Amino acid sequence: TSSGSDGSDDDAETTAGKSIYMVSDGTGWTVEHSVNAALGQFEHCLVDRGCAVNTHLFSGIDDVERLMEIVKQAAKEGAMLVYTLADPSMADAARQACMHWGIPMTDMLGPITEAIATHLGVLPSGLPRGAPGRSFPLTDEYFRRIEAIEFSIKQDDGAFPQNLHKADIVLAGVSRTGKTPLSIYLAQKGYKVANVPIVIGVQLPKSLFEVDPEKVFGLTINPLVLQTIRTARAKTLGFSEGMKSNYSEMVHVRQELEFARRILAQNPVWPVIEVTGKAIEETAAVVLRLYHDRKHKCSMPRISKRY
Amino acid sequence: TSSGSDGSDDDAETTAGKSIYMVSDGTGWTVEHSVNAALGQFEHCLVDRGCAVNTHLFSGIDDVERLMEIVKQAAKEGAMLVYTLADPSMADAARQACMHWGIPMTDMLGPITEAIATHLGVLPSGLPRGAPGRSFPLTDEYFRRIEAIEFSIKQDDGAFPQNLHKADIVLAGVSRTGKTPLSIYLAQKGYKVANVPIVIGVQLPKSLFEVDPEKVFGLTINPLVLQTIRTARAKTLGFSEGMKSNYSEMVHVRQELEFARRILAQNPVWPVIEVTGKAIEETAAVVLRLYHDRKHKCSMPRISKRY
Ligand SMILES: Nc1ncnc2c1ncn2[C@@H]1O[C@H](COP(=O)(O)O)[C@@H](O)[C@H]1O
Ligand SMILES: Nc1ncnc2c1ncn2[C@@H]1O[C@H](COP(=O)(O)O)[C@@H](O)[C@H]1O
Ligand SMILES: [Mg+2]
Ligand SMILES: [Mg+2]
Repeated sequence: TSSGSDGSDDDAETTAGKSIYMVSDGTGWTVEHSVNAALGQFEHCLVDRGCAVNTHLFSGIDDVERLMEIVKQAAKEGAMLVYTLADPSMADAARQACMHWGIPMTDMLGPITEAIATHLGVLPSGLPRGAPGRSFPLTDEYFRRIEAIEFSIKQDDGAFPQNLHKADIVLAGVSRTGKTPLSIYLAQKGYKVANVPIVIGVQLPKSLFEVDPEKVFGLTINPLVLQTIRTARAKTLGFSEGMKSNYSEMVHVRQELEFARRILAQNPVWPVIEVTGKAIEETAAVVLRLYHDRKHKCSMPRISKRY
Repeated sequence: TSSGSDGSDDDAETTAGKSIYMVSDGTGWTVEHSVNAALGQFEHCLVDRGCAVNTHLFSGIDDVERLMEIVKQAAKEGAMLVYTLADPSMADAARQACMHWGIPMTDMLGPITEAIATHLGVLPSGLPRGAPGRSFPLTDEYFRRIEAIEFSIKQDDGAFPQNLHKADIVLAGVSRTGKTPLSIYLAQKGYKVANVPIVIGVQLPKSLFEVDPEKVFGLTINPLVLQTIRTARAKTLGFSEGMKSNYSEMVHVRQELEFARRILAQNPVWPVIEVTGKAIEETAAVVLRLYHDRKHKCSMPRISKRY
């Protein structure tokens, strides 16, 4: 998949491939996330470009006029429409216009919202998230999340080891096991994360061995994959030949992973997570599953929240 | 809503409120995101706890045995089930078990996946994201995202102004307008973001006025709301009385916002975004809408991607 900042979306290219129009009265991130996951089911033909797909996200669509313009444009392009519209009259308008123009459509949140309404015995408000009057509450959770992000940035790459006791989660692993993006991913979910690099021959901070071992997670990776990633990294950083070879040379990579393996093994309470082949969000799911399981010891591992 | 790191999910509390079981063969983030957005439609009763909701996320569920255990537990608790299961036989098993136990259920991705399949004329693979054999491609996009995150961390809070020209997006605003969490949110989406604090009496880096003005975004906020946020912040940081009053005192807050307003007004190409009452992801949607609109000048503002 190709992403935001340089997605090729000039008109010439978008004609070569099927289009999916995504419409939301809010940010559009829910419909984008869902379509993205669904497209995972078509990777077998997306990767070899057998069936290229262009997605177009229209966010903040809260009046019928703009909605109708988008539907008409979708009809012209032969696109399908996926929408999340909280106002029932907007959702109806989308559905009827699509039927009128013969456009395939999916209401992404309508069914789940109805199901929850029945389950709770409460009618949905029908108000989009940006609706006037819906004052944004500066909740404790809001502040806590921002604090988690600021903490995790500050604690990146082994900085301020004296603060490890303040972290909810501590990640340890050699360079390029994804500690930084994983820390940030978890921070966005409200966890204060610190990450500590394991470097061959460099002593780890004493505090790492003093904090609650149940919150420390080791990351490991296949040496061949690590070498590939490090070679790419060395190129990006413009390493000199000498530095590069030491950092990404196979012998060194294996030695450093072995050094890390031994340290992690000496602390058997720390789980060691294999990150090879996992996207950041997949590793995050594994970490949080273990984290909540250890904290709450449910019969079936789960992450629970209260709204 | 209460979130991950300290969500109250001990057994005593979870009984007081309706339960939603969320099941995925992957990370579970898609079903969590969707349920979360849908619950926004019930804020009118969630906030005053008229109808408390407990969600339970079960991720990595890729065998029928565990799936059945969860469905049985849901039946026992009177919960509803929301699932994303790529393997059609797993999805069928969930549906039939729910019907058997009389559990309300929603298949979150089934309908959109079918609609996309019809639209593309291709069958879905039926393989969950972690399925064996699905080798994770170390794509350019993957590396670019990680680079964006690392860049944005490094450029937080005005650091390394000589690098502003390397950023895709530059954010400028006074302290506590959400520059840091917004930078990180955008970085996760693949954009290299730098943020520059505006502080009364402190000169802004020359490079801010030398970079492409189309990529600079000003953030502004209501003075009363800012004062509230800063007071909370000062408490967290443990500011002394003297520092606190200067930072969060109303006169100072107003003066600093006026100082910022004048600088932003002197650079009329920079859009100024009002963040009052907006969640981080809402401000992110506004920034990216403007960013893509300026870059691509479509008749209808959109964010386009190619898969
Ligand atoms: N906090 C909320 N309150 C009300 N509606 C929401 C909330 N969050 C999301 N929604 C709705 O859920 C759908 C998806 O939101 P978004 O991800 O912002 O596009 C839109 O129809 C929004 O209006
Ligand atoms: N890249 C992918 N390839 C195949 N299936 C995917 C991919 N990403 C997500 N899915 C599926 O989409 C649903 C939601 O994924 P998740 O958000 O990880 O729970 C699950 O059924 C996953 O198996
Ligand atoms: Mg790092
Ligand atoms: Mg900041």
